[in-house]
Amino acid sequence: MAEQLAGVTIAVIGGDERQIFLVSKLLEMGANVKVIGLPERKELTGCEFCKDLAQTIQDVQAIILPMAGTDFEGNIITAFSKNKLEFTEQIFQSIPNHVPIFLGVAKPFLREWARFYEKKLIEIADLDEIAIPNSIPTAEACIQIAMEKLPITIHGSNTVVLGFGRCGMTLARMLHGIGAKTTVVARKPKDLARIREMGLTAGTFDQLTEILPQADLIINTIPIQILTERRLSYVNKEALIIDIATAPGGTDFQAAERLGLNAILTPSLPGLVAPKTAGYILAETLPRLILSEISLPGTNKVGGKIS
Amino acid sequence: MAEQLAGVTIAVIGGDERQIFLVSKLLEMGANVKVIGLPERKELTGCEFCKDLAQTIQDVQAIILPMAGTDFEGNIITAFSKNKLEFTEQIFQSIPNHVPIFLGVAKPFLREWARFYEKKLIEIADLDEIAIPNSIPTAEACIQIAMEKLPITIHGSNTVVLGFGRCGMTLARMLHGIGAKTTVVARKPKDLARIREMGLTAGTFDQLTEILPQADLIINTIPIQILTERRLSYVNKEALIIDIATAPGGTDFQAAERLGLNAILTPSLPGLVAPKTAGYILAETLPRLILSEISLPGTNKVGGKIS
Amino acid sequence: MAEQLAGVTIAVIGGDERQIFLVSKLLEMGANVKVIGLPERKELTGCEFCKDLAQTIQDVQAIILPMAGTDFEGNIITAFSKNKLEFTEQIFQSIPNHVPIFLGVAKPFLREWARFYEKKLIEIADLDEIAIPNSIPTAEACIQIAMEKLPITIHGSNTVVLGFGRCGMTLARMLHGIGAKTTVVARKPKDLARIREMGLTAGTFDQLTEILPQADLIINTIPIQILTERRLSYVNKEALIIDIATAPGGTDFQAAERLGLNAILTPSLPGLVAPKTAGYILAETLPRLILSEISLPGTNKVGGKIS
Amino acid sequence: MAEQLAGVTIAVIGGDERQIFLVSKLLEMGANVKVIGLPERKELTGCEFCKDLAQTIQDVQAIILPMAGTDFEGNIITAFSKNKLEFTEQIFQSIPNHVPIFLGVAKPFLREWARFYEKKLIEIADLDEIAIPNSIPTAEACIQIAMEKLPITIHGSNTVVLGFGRCGMTLARMLHGIGAKTTVVARKPKDLARIREMGLTAGTFDQLTEILPQADLIINTIPIQILTERRLSYVNKEALIIDIATAPGGTDFQAAERLGLNAILTPSLPGLVAPKTAGYILAETLPRLILSEISLPGTNKVGGKIS
Repeated sequence: MAEQLAGVTIAVIGGDERQIFLVSKLLEMGANVKVIGLPERKELTGCEFCKDLAQTIQDVQAIILPMAGTDFEGNIITAFSKNKLEFTEQIFQSIPNHVPIFLGVAKPFLREWARFYEKKLIEIADLDEIAIPNSIPTAEACIQIAMEKLPITIHGSNTVVLGFGRCGMTLARMLHGIGAKTTVVARKPKDLARIREMGLTAGTFDQLTEILPQADLIINTIPIQILTERRLSYVNKEALIIDIATAPGGTDFQAAERLGLNAILTPSLPGLVAPKTAGYILAETLPRLILSEISLPGTNKVGGKIS
Repeated sequence: MAEQLAGVTIAVIGGDERQIFLVSKLLEMGANVKVIGLPERKELTGCEFCKDLAQTIQDVQAIILPMAGTDFEGNIITAFSKNKLEFTEQIFQSIPNHVPIFLGVAKPFLREWARFYEKKLIEIADLDEIAIPNSIPTAEACIQIAMEKLPITIHGSNTVVLGFGRCGMTLARMLHGIGAKTTVVARKPKDLARIREMGLTAGTFDQLTEILPQADLIINTIPIQILTERRLSYVNKEALIIDIATAPGGTDFQAAERLGLNAILTPSLPGLVAPKTAGYILAETLPRLILSEISLPGTNKVGGKIS
Repeated sequence: MAEQLAGVTIAVIGGDERQIFLVSKLLEMGANVKVIGLPERKELTGCEFCKDLAQTIQDVQAIILPMAGTDFEGNIITAFSKNKLEFTEQIFQSIPNHVPIFLGVAKPFLREWARFYEKKLIEIADLDEIAIPNSIPTAEACIQIAMEKLPITIHGSNTVVLGFGRCGMTLARMLHGIGAKTTVVARKPKDLARIREMGLTAGTFDQLTEILPQADLIINTIPIQILTERRLSYVNKEALIIDIATAPGGTDFQAAERLGLNAILTPSLPGLVAPKTAGYILAETLPRLILSEISLPGTNKVGGKIS
Repeated sequence: MAEQLAGVTIAVIGGDERQIFLVSKLLEMGANVKVIGLPERKELTGCEFCKDLAQTIQDVQAIILPMAGTDFEGNIITAFSKNKLEFTEQIFQSIPNHVPIFLGVAKPFLREWARFYEKKLIEIADLDEIAIPNSIPTAEACIQIAMEKLPITIHGSNTVVLGFGRCGMTLARMLHGIGAKTTVVARKPKDLARIREMGLTAGTFDQLTEILPQADLIINTIPIQILTERRLSYVNKEALIIDIATAPGGTDFQAAERLGLNAILTPSLPGLVAPKTAGYILAETLPRLILSEISLPGTNKVGGKIS
């Protein structure tokens, strides 16, 4: 990998421990890195620490925002500084159209701006090569929470995973590896076939009313309201529900509360519980994405999922 | 499932042990079944045994050919009879256009006819819900061959799986479960990520020249020529190559022979090694496919993958 | 199991959530249960709540102390009451010699008394049928701590387990199931052989100086000082050491601190993290032990492993 | 390992492919090797090929017989020669008392002679460090047979393993790894606990009459008659029984035949199916055993398990 980014200047704006690790890798790969909103730690020796956003994004070939990008008011999300760092429309507009702007998931206003000003906003959280590795810290965080909250062991428990996407598959494999009696509920015949192949019990949504009452632990990964009041009424009072789907999750939390159920909506966890692993995942993937974007100067992609 | 097929008449033409199991299930589900090329075994009690193809396909709502369909001369493939049973153009033409004709994989001439005469030829081998369950007997057959041919145990062996499709994933999981040191070689970043998540070693095609010399067992699942003469030259003389990709496989077998390598091309194995399981997979899936086809009389799909 | 303990009177003294679950099972099985140091919860309806120890142990056929028994001053360990409940020599002496007194591990003074007064003190923590099931909550607690403390995921981490006894085996299997690169260090050739059979890396104590520097997570299960200052000097500064061996553990904690290493000695965890599972394990095993003791009135075992 | 056996002269008498591999390793380690009953293959370059047994055993410090030793008539078991090679009482008697004679399992007459003449006969098949690694080729051979004989896949089958010793544990782990629904039947509470910990179903012998009728595949590892006529009467006619216990196995084969059941007694399989792995296991272990025997000239062990 050494020196693959020699001669490339990258702006890294805000973030958390993941960015520290990412920046140190970018430096190793020979990039010039301009940062703002990150502390002057020794791992960052060699960076150019900037005073404001305008300076940071000047003459760069790629911009990396935090995974969560900005809050709804447009402030860059950063774990290291209490000073607000506003990503204004003016700043955004000043970015050259060919410079890729990477982040995990963009707030709607950012997507609007990108479409309107034809900027190259690239949301990476949904890319398989980020999302699959990220499913590992997510699954472990989820298992850690279950271990903390349940008075029984995961091993031997009746665990139900709703959904068999990138996180669902990882969770199911790990839970089975620990020794949980794992049922995965999915819709597509091909997913049901793969679930069975993995030695797990496959269930359909029609069967939920039989599956839920047996469950000690229910983990939802589907970002539409799957656990409706009616379905929640089948859940055992001693069960734990962990909802890891993108907020607002797939659980009717108000109904869960009315029913006296223990339901938790977890925020996006990888950066929280395993920042180093999560930083490593970014450092593994972003350089390649940057190179593929800056080596194709003609293709000015805008908007859309990967914009 | 009981009686879901009541009132439906189905023709089952030729085949092997799988068809015996399939027919017995169709009967259980209330179907009328007309057969030819199958023996008068007690499991088939209740079938109408026909004398010729014309009689067999008369007044049926669905036709089931063997998974392999016909040979290149147009003879129905059947394990139970030495008499030729030719599926002529005339017979084919006489099938009403709305009657679905199921088989695994069609020979090119059959696809041509289907396109020309606008028949509803449905190739099921490539459907995920058939192919994923079928990957299990395929993987076991492959492992059985490896156990027979190798002087070492699978456990502890350096095993390389080329490709991470439906069969590759199943094989990799099973080999790991037995205790092989399993490397899976794939191209897509998302596959490499999933391979790592499963606790296996991921490799790219660029790395093949380093991976191949270490391998005791190499299983190819990719139906294009992956194991070229150049790559084969890196393979250890004591290694075993099993190629389970659709004929002619992904191995240059002539080069392998010149190099003194032990390379085997396996025919489609599920029906051979685990006919009951393979029949069960058909019996699980075909009734649903039949019902979905005959309940949608308007949609007259022809040609293409699922035609 | 129903009513197997009908007519048997059992004293349950102190304890924690495990005892609640245990007592409810003893009641289900028809026993008369006298308790002290436990709260008047609805699961305990039907118990006789006693005022002092003398009353509690009167006319019982078996006595169950908490798993940890007493503290070094002789006070019964109880999670539910702040009042001291002293298990005095006088009380101990008054227990009839044929009445079995169960607990997990006895403090030395209790063993002395048992030997001197010829009482039937039975330490169950070391019985395989308690220790193997208990290894599951122990392993999960250990994994939970590792997930909390490490900035990387368990999956993909280099994890070293020292010892391949009851806990070591469970830990190794679970860590491998999650996806850790797991090395188990053991002495006996038969353990090394089994470790390899399980698909794990086996190491010997001679190899520790090569194994330790690679480790992200080190879990010690051996109750003698394995991690000496010299060996600790090989450990990576970012690694986490969790020592689950019986106090004082197998780590030179002072040396670890001097070396700036992160080393944790965990108390006996099953009751803490999975009280219901731990209670279930007791409830599964104790009734059988009680029945086997009280049906064999002649064999007055004292001292020793099962004393 | 290099040269650890320099200056040691070892006789290797008869055997099969395992011995070829073993001898090549002994040569690598610097030993002088005298052989009889083995072919002049290039791997054996450097051996002294002897004409008769008397010459072979002259001036050696250790003797290695085939794993199966002799037949009941006293002829050395050898796969490479049709000439009889009789291990006579006279030859046996002429071996110096301090020279260890290694073999897998001795026929009763050999044990008698060893006791009578005070020779150092060492049966290694039962040593954990041989038996545990050997359980791997044994388990794979057993799985291969099951794959060949059953019309269903191992994956998804109801498989019952009788016994949880060295082979039972390996088999259970592998079958589970492939995806069989695995039940292990054992007697000891500690084994039942470990079976459950491994995520398998544990059963007791009392439950056999409920377990057997569900089984598709039954593998016996217990060398006493477990599968009696009464128990066999509960077995499904389509099930396969594989008995891998030391001959005559644990199955009443005559009753099985009367009942129309498919029951197979397998000979000791490691050398047959994975000779290279089996040879490697011997080569890993025998040098250490030889060194420990010849460096302790005073301890003249005879008879008993390791005699």
